[in-house]
Amino acid sequence: MAEGYTLGVDLGSLSARAVIVRVWDGCVVATGEEAYEHGVIEGSIGGIPIPEGMFLQKPGDFIRSLQKSVRKALQNGNVDPGEIMGIGVDATSPTIIATDVLGKPILESHGLENHPFAQALMWKSHASMREVEDILELARERKEPFLAYTGKSMGSNLPIPKLLHLVRNAPKVYEAADRYFDLSDWIVKLLTGKDTMNDSTAGGKFFWRQEAGFPSREFFSGLDGRLHNFLEKIPDPHQVIPAAECAGRLTQEGARLLGLLPGTVVSAGHVDAAAPLAFVGLNKPHVLFLSIGTSVSGYIVDPKLVRVEGIYGVLEDFPAKGLYAYEIGLQSFGDTLAWFVENCCPEELTKGASKGEVFARLNERAERLQPCGSGLMALNWWNGNRSPLMDGDLSGVILGLTLNTKPEEIYRALAEAMAFNFRWIAEGLTDQGLAVHQVLAGGGIPMKNRFLMQLISDVLGKEVHVPKSGELAAQGSAIFAAVAAGAYETLDQAVHAMGMKEKERYTPNLEHTRKYEKLYHLYVKLCRELGKGESPLKRLGELRTQAKAGTEEERG
Amino acid sequence: MAEGYTLGVDLGSLSARAVIVRVWDGCVVATGEEAYEHGVIEGSIGGIPIPEGMFLQKPGDFIRSLQKSVRKALQNGNVDPGEIMGIGVDATSPTIIATDVLGKPILESHGLENHPFAQALMWKSHASMREVEDILELARERKEPFLAYTGKSMGSNLPIPKLLHLVRNAPKVYEAADRYFDLSDWIVKLLTGKDTMNDSTAGGKFFWRQEAGFPSREFFSGLDGRLHNFLEKIPDPHQVIPAAECAGRLTQEGARLLGLLPGTVVSAGHVDAAAPLAFVGLNKPHVLFLSIGTSVSGYIVDPKLVRVEGIYGVLEDFPAKGLYAYEIGLQSFGDTLAWFVENCCPEELTKGASKGEVFARLNERAERLQPCGSGLMALNWWNGNRSPLMDGDLSGVILGLTLNTKPEEIYRALAEAMAFNFRWIAEGLTDQGLAVHQVLAGGGIPMKNRFLMQLISDVLGKEVHVPKSGELAAQGSAIFAAVAAGAYETLDQAVHAMGMKEKERYTPNLEHTRKYEKLYHLYVKLCRELGKGESPLKRLGELRTQAKAGTEEERG
Repeated sequence: MAEGYTLGVDLGSLSARAVIVRVWDGCVVATGEEAYEHGVIEGSIGGIPIPEGMFLQKPGDFIRSLQKSVRKALQNGNVDPGEIMGIGVDATSPTIIATDVLGKPILESHGLENHPFAQALMWKSHASMREVEDILELARERKEPFLAYTGKSMGSNLPIPKLLHLVRNAPKVYEAADRYFDLSDWIVKLLTGKDTMNDSTAGGKFFWRQEAGFPSREFFSGLDGRLHNFLEKIPDPHQVIPAAECAGRLTQEGARLLGLLPGTVVSAGHVDAAAPLAFVGLNKPHVLFLSIGTSVSGYIVDPKLVRVEGIYGVLEDFPAKGLYAYEIGLQSFGDTLAWFVENCCPEELTKGASKGEVFARLNERAERLQPCGSGLMALNWWNGNRSPLMDGDLSGVILGLTLNTKPEEIYRALAEAMAFNFRWIAEGLTDQGLAVHQVLAGGGIPMKNRFLMQLISDVLGKEVHVPKSGELAAQGSAIFAAVAAGAYETLDQAVHAMGMKEKERYTPNLEHTRKYEKLYHLYVKLCRELGKGESPLKRLGELRTQAKAGTEEERG
Repeated sequence: MAEGYTLGVDLGSLSARAVIVRVWDGCVVATGEEAYEHGVIEGSIGGIPIPEGMFLQKPGDFIRSLQKSVRKALQNGNVDPGEIMGIGVDATSPTIIATDVLGKPILESHGLENHPFAQALMWKSHASMREVEDILELARERKEPFLAYTGKSMGSNLPIPKLLHLVRNAPKVYEAADRYFDLSDWIVKLLTGKDTMNDSTAGGKFFWRQEAGFPSREFFSGLDGRLHNFLEKIPDPHQVIPAAECAGRLTQEGARLLGLLPGTVVSAGHVDAAAPLAFVGLNKPHVLFLSIGTSVSGYIVDPKLVRVEGIYGVLEDFPAKGLYAYEIGLQSFGDTLAWFVENCCPEELTKGASKGEVFARLNERAERLQPCGSGLMALNWWNGNRSPLMDGDLSGVILGLTLNTKPEEIYRALAEAMAFNFRWIAEGLTDQGLAVHQVLAGGGIPMKNRFLMQLISDVLGKEVHVPKSGELAAQGSAIFAAVAAGAYETLDQAVHAMGMKEKERYTPNLEHTRKYEKLYHLYVKLCRELGKGESPLKRLGELRTQAKAGTEEERG
């Protein structure tokens, strides 16, 4: 029987969370959390304006929060450092950090403390719309093979659009950096001294494929002459390693940072959205996993490689050898509902109530409404559409408003729209050979919002299972670490021993499923009409951009 | 020089208002107001459910409020009853009251105290959607001449749809009544004993034309056999009289009611929306008058009779012989903004503030925004569209919502949409031969909301004039009464002497007009796409109706 513990660390958007997990049964024996000192930075930094759509973080915050969360967990669990046999780290992605050759952020080594482009470029930065167009144009012209697996479109927050945006706007910062790391790989570098790129970042964000490697030098030069040396600034294709493999061992410095022993195994980094796959048992096909928080990242795993429209990326050999993890998502979920509560909820609902209580009130009222009973429909594009349209320029719509419309009806319509989006995605996957039989919903919202989960189950007409753990990613990372450290021979064995045991089950009210049928078809029809071609939403975006440019011109 | 005073009475939706006006210069010497005891009744009455979309009032409330408001005005102005030379009455329309042959409401004479269909059927009742379809179908089949002047569609609140709805749902109530009066004509009946129909009700609401009279007996029988005697229940065509003519003289009973002298001239009734035309000087073409309140009634006057799409009705010989008043409108204006404040405005804006203060805060913030700067667009159909689409089944839309959208941006988008609707109407009128050179905006909102008036001026690219009086309708009625009583020979003379003297002037910011150009064209395009043909808004309405029917079925 496997003995000892592994440490899983999850670097999220606002804090680092560490869990210590018993290897033989997956039991969480201790946790620790530490928020980032500077949180998310937007608007300006040290008086320097930050371009709209860019969100920054301080690299130093990650290190401090990593250290403190791990030390808290060790202390809380009273675990001897010698019993920690492996460390696994996942992080938001793509959160890009520019460093020198030793992994030190260039904002420290090059005196760029407050340069926006020298900070950690946070995963949700989406200032590179124009770059996406240029990249797609060149890729189509060159018939780049990666196009086949990324759909016709591309998120403007991906690393290549981000880096093209960077070289165009801050060429000196680009030049100054020796390395560009995704956040989890950077942590691995700090802990082990090794330059690696994990395969979830490589495949999901950098268009890497086992057989083809990264896009070519010619492609990067074609985008911008200054990117000719881009491939020298990231690890070479041979250093792309899967999450369950050992990336290196704790150096003296790394061990000091965490309070652990030098030589402890560190598994390869991986993106936070994909980290739960090991824990929730997504090492088999036909289950759609949705990680529901401010936005939604979802995966379906299959042993075959197929071309699928509307997916965001394909991870190769993830979560284990011989599997492909197809990534889908919603640009906004909790964000949209929070926007609603903050901007559109009348005093009558919010007075004297915490945010949680407002949601409880809304849920209670919305639950009493009938499917289709309000005559409302929303298109849930408050932050653009990720799957299946892959278009960040789209915006949200509400139709069917009348003088009798109540706030809880709008709330329900927003929730229904997101559930319809899930159904649209699930049907698209099924049509393209990745049949969805069941849905697993993880993350903060599924654990606390029963109304939303039941609604999703009703709209999909499928069971929705919700794992009873708030640390899916960190627990997944601890499982990868256990395999990397040799506690189990295969990921399957580790998943069987350490994976999810408890879950809540939502069964669809099939009467509601039937009632939603026509409304769902209207949703898809409207998405096609308003989301494609000469979309009025894009026209509105153009007019807004022109208005802003005009105002700035006037200001001189 | 004309001596003495006239009394103008305006029976609005919630109260009666009386003004005593000096005949030689139009000066208001006293006013009086009295709210209706039972206000607006919906939902149920005496335990009996009221069909959805029906709004009722108690006929007795009108009499009591009329009496009290007039007595208050007389007292406030210390005016001797002998000095009142004429009385003019306007009222909401079509507000239909069923009476016996003496004008006594059948709910009193027939023991129908709480029967919904025996109450005053308020102007805004719109429960007769299906009846509109049947009426239009028959009218098209029979090629009824009135179709030419009412556009392709018809408001479901008009008297003929209302009465067809009544005979279908309460045939005994229909049978029980000897007469059906529009509210202002009923008041004239009470005061003078005379059965008349004023020409603004006849032309605007009953499809009456000078040369053709009312629709034929065959038409009414074709709608429903029980309506064969309908024309006997309204005054005959020879009793249709213009607003500036004497309808009769105060009876003893009428004089006792008001505290005036028997024999005082009472001019013909007229609809409240048209009453201001005399006061604001709309006895000439090219001025679009908009009466802006919860909804909008608007008129443009012209000496020629033309066929115009999207108008709501044409008044013949109104406000004076040889003129046609074309009616346009918005189903909802202040109602939509009030809905927004009550249902969608966060605590941050409403806390500790009166409704007026919330509007002041919204105006202040919205005023600072740039045209097109929010990327938002609304279609202002919270209560359907009156002009130019004439479709009560449409509902409201907001497009372009993002996580950055602020409440004041939505507020401004709603206001812009209504202003765009005005421009759409004005361009339609101009294209069809009724050129609009200037806009006059009267009513409560124009007097107190400068932001909205400036926005309307900017969007239209035209001057907007706002009369400085809150009693446009009652003052208009007093002018009609002065002509009817012989104080002036023509309406022109009376308008010149007694009409509007003071007004506020809004001049368009032409830079904003230019900026709004493209957004306006997108508005019209979207209105055409979402408002006509296979509209998703109608589909949503159908699904809602089905859902409600299903729920009722389930309940048993």
